[in-house]
Amino acid sequence: MAEALTERLAHIVGAGHVSTDPDVLAARSVDHTGRYRGRACALVRPGTGDQVAAVLRACRDAGAYVTVQGGRTSLVAGTVPEHDDVLLSTERLTTIGDVDTVERRISVGAGVTLAAVQKTAAAAGLVFGVDLAARDSATVGGMASTNAGGLRTVRYGNMGEQVLGLDIALPDGSVVHRHSQVRRDNTGYDLTSLFVGAEGTLGVITALDLRLYPVPTHRATAVCGFADLDALVETGRRFRDLDGIAALELIDARAGRLAAEHLGVPVPVAGSWLLLIELAGDTDQTERLADALTDAQVCDEPAVGVDIGAQQRLWNVRESLAEVVGLFGPPLKFDVSLPLSAIGGFAESAGKLVAAHAPDAIPVLFGHIGEGNLHLNVLRCALDTEPALYAAMMALIADCGGNVSSEHGVGTRKRDYVAMSRTPADIAAMRAVKAALDPRGYLNPAVLFAQ
Amino acid sequence: MAEALTERLAHIVGAGHVSTDPDVLAARSVDHTGRYRGRACALVRPGTGDQVAAVLRACRDAGAYVTVQGGRTSLVAGTVPEHDDVLLSTERLTTIGDVDTVERRISVGAGVTLAAVQKTAAAAGLVFGVDLAARDSATVGGMASTNAGGLRTVRYGNMGEQVLGLDIALPDGSVVHRHSQVRRDNTGYDLTSLFVGAEGTLGVITALDLRLYPVPTHRATAVCGFADLDALVETGRRFRDLDGIAALELIDARAGRLAAEHLGVPVPVAGSWLLLIELAGDTDQTERLADALTDAQVCDEPAVGVDIGAQQRLWNVRESLAEVVGLFGPPLKFDVSLPLSAIGGFAESAGKLVAAHAPDAIPVLFGHIGEGNLHLNVLRCALDTEPALYAAMMALIADCGGNVSSEHGVGTRKRDYVAMSRTPADIAAMRAVKAALDPRGYLNPAVLFAQ
Repeated sequence: MAEALTERLAHIVGAGHVSTDPDVLAARSVDHTGRYRGRACALVRPGTGDQVAAVLRACRDAGAYVTVQGGRTSLVAGTVPEHDDVLLSTERLTTIGDVDTVERRISVGAGVTLAAVQKTAAAAGLVFGVDLAARDSATVGGMASTNAGGLRTVRYGNMGEQVLGLDIALPDGSVVHRHSQVRRDNTGYDLTSLFVGAEGTLGVITALDLRLYPVPTHRATAVCGFADLDALVETGRRFRDLDGIAALELIDARAGRLAAEHLGVPVPVAGSWLLLIELAGDTDQTERLADALTDAQVCDEPAVGVDIGAQQRLWNVRESLAEVVGLFGPPLKFDVSLPLSAIGGFAESAGKLVAAHAPDAIPVLFGHIGEGNLHLNVLRCALDTEPALYAAMMALIADCGGNVSSEHGVGTRKRDYVAMSRTPADIAAMRAVKAALDPRGYLNPAVLFAQ
Repeated sequence: MAEALTERLAHIVGAGHVSTDPDVLAARSVDHTGRYRGRACALVRPGTGDQVAAVLRACRDAGAYVTVQGGRTSLVAGTVPEHDDVLLSTERLTTIGDVDTVERRISVGAGVTLAAVQKTAAAAGLVFGVDLAARDSATVGGMASTNAGGLRTVRYGNMGEQVLGLDIALPDGSVVHRHSQVRRDNTGYDLTSLFVGAEGTLGVITALDLRLYPVPTHRATAVCGFADLDALVETGRRFRDLDGIAALELIDARAGRLAAEHLGVPVPVAGSWLLLIELAGDTDQTERLADALTDAQVCDEPAVGVDIGAQQRLWNVRESLAEVVGLFGPPLKFDVSLPLSAIGGFAESAGKLVAAHAPDAIPVLFGHIGEGNLHLNVLRCALDTEPALYAAMMALIADCGGNVSSEHGVGTRKRDYVAMSRTPADIAAMRAVKAALDPRGYLNPAVLFAQ
């Protein structure tokens, strides 16, 4: 990298926050699986939104590419630099404002972790609407950029539904402050929704106003076993629009067995497919849950948790999956959305595909059944079989009427598959928007669009 | 207009669907108040989305401006042509697809009225999430373009939350089909949210997939009277995040008195300010409503409706307001969002402003208190006092931390006030997006942006 750019960056953020150390850059140029590796020329860690904007201006002027990094928990290699990029880390944007308990909102920097937001909300007697396994590392800026989902989407929606306002540094070095003290703000284009989910290609989110919710006073949790995936899906369908639905999680019994065997997490019911259901609200939910389960075609008596301890034990099965899928090294991951009616057929065909391509591998399916959002993890998949299996699986997903990317985003990993879920005119419109805000194409150049 | 364009349009849509009749054009070039009048060179009524795209191409090639018209119920003169435009009416895009009762959705043409969607949903045992007074005329295409709100926003959200997919004809004549069979679709930019609320400046919505909901089995409705607006707002604040909240409507008692006097609609409680509250869900709501009302600082015993007849009588007060505000001719209307904490002060200051500018006028306030979305209607306001009062009121709204446009959009009426709610960098970003998709600036040229 040109000395001049390093000097200009140091002038903006302070010399201590610019690094060109090859070890530092190498460690940050690879994803968590170790399989996707790029190359970076510098790391810069701005401390304010204005510094982010100034960094962008400097990089643009110098003809450098920029890749934005939050908690680097992307599951689609979304922060791997491919163009000898400047790495722009949001890690110092960690301001946490006071909780507004009346309007139920909080303003935070983009580099604040999900766990920190959750903790701050809890201390004020409120709850944040998004929860996911990477909570200790994932930053809210990154989560907004990918429109992350998670365990509570069926109740509160994705990350986008939580974002009431944001500061965003644009590729031209300007800063848009889009905040509102009101819940509905309908003046002009919904730029907030445009930047949410744009995976950092249109600008760098530097701060966010996030919505918080009252903590439900009553909660009831159950894990049910099903012999048949279609029966589970049918139960999920009946539950997903029920008042007070708070979680609706599919768990593959194969994953449950692995959790029991390797992690000592007991699985409370028999069945090939498990469904974790939670209702929450301001009245007792236990009876409602029991009523709603009356007609479910379960193959074992549901395990019901009425107190917090019992509920946590049921959740442990679901929470253990993040560790289960890593038991044999980084798994091959698919994050897809499917119409509920296609889920049974997809699971069967996907199992056959895995058996054909990688006979020793273990496919494990789980996910958020309310949204038809499934995570297929292929454990113990030989590296050399991955590319063919990946391509075949993406084609199967498209055949099933599914979307090739769901809550994990596109990143670099799926950019060549976007055309399976989007028409040419749609992609052209997206490229036009990208070109309008980033005509030089220097911001997050490797993600979202086919190269 | 050039003969050549008329001929080309006739070739696209059929000669019977192109008109250059001066009377027809004059009738369509004015808003419903009669106060905003423009000029058009032709009316074209395409019958399909592809015809819409072809019409756009033809107009662009001919250098003509296009103004899109749906049900022409805009309250901000959003469909008044100012550039001798071609009027593109969506009135023939009236296809209504089958209700998918499993996925709870329906696909309809942009020209379908809200009432038709509501009726079709009801026939399938479901309900559409948006309801508003202009239901018999307003089209879902126009409602999506303005991200309309209404009486059920506190429960189901604005129009944008109902749109699961759309067909949109872009200014370059291409058509984006963005549909998904899945509930969460996170691949690339959220163009759906970009087009929703764009007021037709980025493309013409030609068809929509709309979300439907189960009909709540239980409902409880109350109208409460308050001596003091702040006490009402505080009750509204407690209710707005309550499980099962289904409506939360502020009604100015002045409007109630007008409804009683002129329309014979009885007002069931005493008080200067009325609050209509409705809870709905799958269990009995009467007791929950009574419990939640225990601490409210009401000035009269709440009128509670437990059966449909009694509920409808309570709703009649709210529904009568559309007629009340027209009792003395077209009112001067303000549609604003305010922080709940600012509503009391705004009401007082707004009353003084009206008294100062138009002593004989009657200010009437109502709206959706859950979102802080208020409609201030100034009845019997002399025409010559309007401009000064309008400008002063907009400044007051901004001073109160409010947004100058809420569910009605910007249209042509408020385009010069956008800068009160948006920063220069924000407006520049919006203009960049507009220029990217409509570089010629020929589509809906009079709305949203200051000229």
